[in-house]
Formats: sequence, structure tokens, C-alpha cells
Amino acid sequence: MKKISLMGASGSIGLQTLDVLRAHQDSFSLEAFSVGRNINQARKIIEEFSPSLVSVQFKEDADILAREYIGKVKVLSGREGLIETAIHPETELLVNAVLGSVGLEPTLQAIKAKKTIAIANKETLVTAGHLVMAEAEKHEVTILPVDSEHSAIFQALQGEKRKNIERLVITASGGSFRDKSRAELENVTVKDALNHPNWSMGAKITIDSASMMNKGLEVIEAKWLFDLPYDKIDVLQHRESIIHSMVEFHDSSVIAQLGTPDMKVPIQYALSYPDRFVHKTDRRLKLEEIGKLHFEKMDFERFRCLDFAYQAGRTGGTMPTVLNAANEAAVALFLNEKISFLDIEYVIEKAMAAHDPIQNPDLGTIIEADQETRSKILADFKG
Amino acid sequence: MKKISLMGASGSIGLQTLDVLRAHQDSFSLEAFSVGRNINQARKIIEEFSPSLVSVQFKEDADILAREYIGKVKVLSGREGLIETAIHPETELLVNAVLGSVGLEPTLQAIKAKKTIAIANKETLVTAGHLVMAEAEKHEVTILPVDSEHSAIFQALQGEKRKNIERLVITASGGSFRDKSRAELENVTVKDALNHPNWSMGAKITIDSASMMNKGLEVIEAKWLFDLPYDKIDVLQHRESIIHSMVEFHDSSVIAQLGTPDMKVPIQYALSYPDRFVHKTDRRLKLEEIGKLHFEKMDFERFRCLDFAYQAGRTGGTMPTVLNAANEAAVALFLNEKISFLDIEYVIEKAMAAHDPIQNPDLGTIIEADQETRSKILADFKG
Repeated sequence: MKKISLMGASGSIGLQTLDVLRAHQDSFSLEAFSVGRNINQARKIIEEFSPSLVSVQFKEDADILAREYIGKVKVLSGREGLIETAIHPETELLVNAVLGSVGLEPTLQAIKAKKTIAIANKETLVTAGHLVMAEAEKHEVTILPVDSEHSAIFQALQGEKRKNIERLVITASGGSFRDKSRAELENVTVKDALNHPNWSMGAKITIDSASMMNKGLEVIEAKWLFDLPYDKIDVLQHRESIIHSMVEFHDSSVIAQLGTPDMKVPIQYALSYPDRFVHKTDRRLKLEEIGKLHFEKMDFERFRCLDFAYQAGRTGGTMPTVLNAANEAAVALFLNEKISFLDIEYVIEKAMAAHDPIQNPDLGTIIEADQETRSKILADFKG
Repeated sequence: MKKISLMGASGSIGLQTLDVLRAHQDSFSLEAFSVGRNINQARKIIEEFSPSLVSVQFKEDADILAREYIGKVKVLSGREGLIETAIHPETELLVNAVLGSVGLEPTLQAIKAKKTIAIANKETLVTAGHLVMAEAEKHEVTILPVDSEHSAIFQALQGEKRKNIERLVITASGGSFRDKSRAELENVTVKDALNHPNWSMGAKITIDSASMMNKGLEVIEAKWLFDLPYDKIDVLQHRESIIHSMVEFHDSSVIAQLGTPDMKVPIQYALSYPDRFVHKTDRRLKLEEIGKLHFEKMDFERFRCLDFAYQAGRTGGTMPTVLNAANEAAVALFLNEKISFLDIEYVIEKAMAAHDPIQNPDLGTIIEADQETRSKILADFKG
């Protein structure tokens, strides 16, 4: 029985992680979990999975749950609660599925406590990949990717030697706007952007898919997860999202992982790794029914966010933090209809141009760069 | 330095194996090799690679070479020479790239002598897979596939557990006649059949590609190489031959190996395994240039040879030997313009219907079934 801690249980990845646990009750148990403000979801999870610890964002919500489940589950809140969830002594594996940079500190603590980490939180690697991977190496902890693209690469690398990698090829569906010209992007609405062709995901990540920032963040994550320079990480447009990503080796052989778009597959793989468990689904890949797979060169001029991500990654230091913070702030402004879709790019470009990067930042410096970036952007748009 | 024995050095796979050795002279040396009657090729190989042993098919050719290279290389001939090539005491790895069933006995001897086997000879596994794999297990010898499809599956299985396999998907280009209807196949010529769309190969295997028997033999080989029942081995038509084959696992994840059609890649992989060496080529896979990959359901009614192969495999015993022998005889008759392309099927069907299979045949029984099948067919077409 593998005991699991789950941070971000009420989000899209969190709920699908619970589905995986539900399907494999003989193999996994939920030891601890966190939600933000969705205490109704917390109630359901407590009743179904009987964890020993739950953590919520606010003290007042924690008090409500504590009264309801007195003697049944320990209830904590805030930063401390999230850390306790991450480092629960009974836990073997932590699924980090929270949104935003709040997952970073608990993840670092969990690595120190020798937990295996299944990482679905982009910010953790984008802003602090150097800290996370150094700690993971130091404490001999495995970092398992949950994102379908990184999981594909991780799977393709099983039984292979890092030194033989020629390049990684991260595939990109192209998002909601892949068939739109730059001019057509001028007037797209929030509703248009939220209509992703292949994957059903949260609002933030769907916008990031449309702007291609999602792919940019994945490039930076891949750099850290697989310890490769940026010139060995390529992005290829592949509209069907069937080939989830690939590794080309120096003998010119390419290993790819394929499947129908189903996040439960990489989630379950991270949980069952190094084994694979049965996944019951009526959506097994039948290429003869799909008929054709399409591939196109990535257009860096149409998708400027992808270019920004490579720039930020190559600059390094605090620059990816600024990229990420500016993007989060800009996407929030777009979702609130304060700025246009293409303004997302301009907000990020401006933030990066204004930032003087600090190399090898510690946690404090990262948080500072993050907050400074967000404050500046908010100030700009309050005026 | 890995010392190699190469049986069948003047054939298509043999020559490409020499190219691989040439490209990696610091890693490989040629210890022993065999050719059939191409003693000019044997001279070139002796001069370039300085092996210690060469074997040719006929004693008179051996005598000529022995006089020319007196004191330089040991020259043998016939069955004994082939076995000495296979089991050379200095050799670590045997590449079995001979055509036909002549490779079977030397391969079994090499397994007993604990040589790693890189197998490019279909007959060895098709007719005697049960003997070869049992000996390999007994002597803890690795059997490395050289065929691009089996190499793809073997690569996809690195770091994976056999128990987690849902099915193998062997891809098939469809051969020269993939776009022809059954009626159109009535009148195809030898020249038409030899015009393969993707791979440049020998005549026999090109005809086998057109009739889909090549794929049928690969299905039987896969059964033995990967120890799976026939209902876990599927064939998928994929005209570009870019995905060389795939493994679907029970979590619905699919791992595939891809590349431009280049036999040197699987040959080199078998030689360098478990490592991968650099392969210098200007034909690296660029999916953005290829644009589209196509997949179609296999048509078992149009390609009856594939159906025969599944039938023969499921029947087992000497039946795959009869399938293979009848096919070899029929293809020879077609290449000599004695029968039509579709007659190949009828010859095989008749031979299988007339055969009373013997289960768990030993080497003698296999050779008997093989010769009996060929004799009958020749007798039929001499009348």
C-alpha cells in the first residue's frame, strides 16, 4: 500500500488523482490532502478516503471542518497546513497539484523529508527548478512529472542513458487559436480562448495553451526535469495531441509515448512508477480510427510567449519567475476582460524588459521577484 | 572492443552491418564472417577488417581464398564453416544475417556457446522459435532483433515489465501493392512487386512485403521474441514506415519507436545494446517536414498471406515451417515467372492444407517438414 499526500485535491489534476486512487484501492491510500476554499469537496474526500490529515487555505474553514469531523481527521490551515500535508510522516509520495507558487516551499520540505514527488505544479520547477532538482539529488528523491508531455519524455527515457539524448521534442496541440493568424488574434474573446480542442482543463492553463505560454513553461520544466540545455529542447506542433512528446537519441532513433488525451494516464503512471497499473478506459488509442496525425513547425513569431519562455530560460536566475508571474497576472487581467488576448504578450514582454535578473536565487529572492512583478503589473492596470 | 561474427556478410543486412562496424572501429571488430558464393566481397572484407576466420559456401571457393590469404586468415566452408563462424571463441556477438533456414543450426550452436545473438534471419525464429528461445533462456543469452519492427518493440520495452503489455502493434507499410485492389493484383508483374515504396531490400523480402507475408513472418517472430500469444500481436497499416512499431501497455499508454527508414539504426542498436552509439546521418526524423502520418486497418482479406501466418502460428508445431518453406518456394517460382503473384497464396494455402502438423518438433523434424514442403511444390510445378 503506497500512502499518498495530495496538495490541491479539488483542482482538475487533484480530482483525477482521486479517481486513480479510487480505481486502485488495494495499492494506494490517501494519507493527507489539501484544498483551497472548497470545503464541500474536502468533506466528500474525508468521507470517502478517511485520510488522517486535511489542510485548507483559511483558519475559519479549518475550524468548521474540525468541528464536523472531531476525532476523525486532523484539520490544519494555511502555509503550515500545506507543509504538514506535504511532509506527513506516513506519506511515501506527494502529489503537488496546487496552482501557483504556493506549492514551492512544501515541495522543498517534502524532498528534505525524502518523499517521492509527483509534480503537476509548473511554477515549482519554472521558478525554482535549480533549488528543487539540487535538493532532489542531494536527498536522492525521484521527481516524477505528471504533465502529459513530461510524463511522455520520462517514459521514453526508461532504460535509456541521459548521455545518449540528442534532443527532446515536446508536442503542442497549438491550443484554441492554432488556426488563427496574428491579425485574427487581435479580437479573440475569453470564451474563444477557453475552448481547447483536445484537453479539458482549468481556465488558466487553457489560456496558457492558447498563448503557447503553457508550452514555454513546459520547455523550462523539461530543462530542469531532464537536465538538458535549451538547444536540446524543441517544440513541434501536433494538433491531435496523440504523440504526447518524444526523445530523439544520438543514434537517430526516436522514442515516443502516445495515447488519447487522458490526464489519468500520466497521473497514474507517476503513482504506480516504476510499475504500470491497469487503466480501465474505453478510450484506448486506435490509430486506424484516427487515420492521420499532423505535424507542423512551430511559429515563434505567431506565438511570442514561447519565444519569451526560451529567452527567460536561457537568461535564467529570477527571469523565469518574472515570466511566470507576469503571465499569471496578465492571464488574470485577460480573464477579467481588463486586457486583450495579445496584451498578455505585451505585459510579459514589458515585465521581462524591466527586470534585472539575479542568478542562483534562493527561495526568498524568488518570492520577492514574483511579488514585485505582480505588484508592478497590478499598479499599471489600476491607474 | 566487442568482437563480432557475421553470417551473411554480402547480403543487404550484412553489408550494412559492415558499415556500422566501419563507423565504430573503436568499439567493434570483425572476428569471423561468412558469405555464400560472393568471394570478391569476401576478399574486400578480409582486406579491410582483417578477421581471423572466413567461411564460404563451397570448398572450391574456400581453397581459392586460402591460397590467396595464406597465413592471414583461416578459411572454411559449408555447414561446418558456418558453425565455426558462429561459435568462434573470440566472438561476443553473432549477427545472423544469412537468408533461409541455413542459419538455424549455427545460431543454436552459438547460443550454447553463450554468444549474444543479433538476429536478422526470419527463418530461425519462424521455424524454430520454440527451440531458439528455450536454448537462449537455458544459457542466459540475449536475442537481439535486427528487423526494424522488432527492434522498435524491443526498444519500446526497455525499462518496462513484460506483464504490463496489453498488445504489440507491428506497423506495415503495405508494400508495393498497398493501393491495389484484389482484382488489380491478378496481373501484377515481378517488376511491379520489386518496387517497394519505403525500403530498399533484397528481392525475396520485397516480394514478401508486397504479399504481406513479410508481416506475417514478423508476427510469428514477435510471438517468440516477446513471449506473447497471437491475440496480443496486431498489425497496423502505416504507409510512411516512420513509426516502426509500438507497444501498448495495460495502462493504455503506448510507447513507439520512430525514425526515417534506415536499417543501420536497428543493426547498430543490436550491436551497441544496451548502449546507443552515435549514428551520423543526414536523414534524421523531421516530422514537421513529413507533415502527416497515415494509419489504416489491415485488410486480412486482401492480404491473405497475413491471415495464413496467424493461422500457422496459432496451429504451431511444424506449421510455421511449412508456411515459410511454401512461401520461399512460391516466391522463387514467381520471381522466375512460373506463377502469378496471387498464385503465391494458393501455393501456400495448398501446402498448409496438406500438412499434418507435428508439435514441438526437433531440428530434424523441422528440416524434414521444410524439405518435404519444397519438394512437393517443385514436383507440382515440374509436371
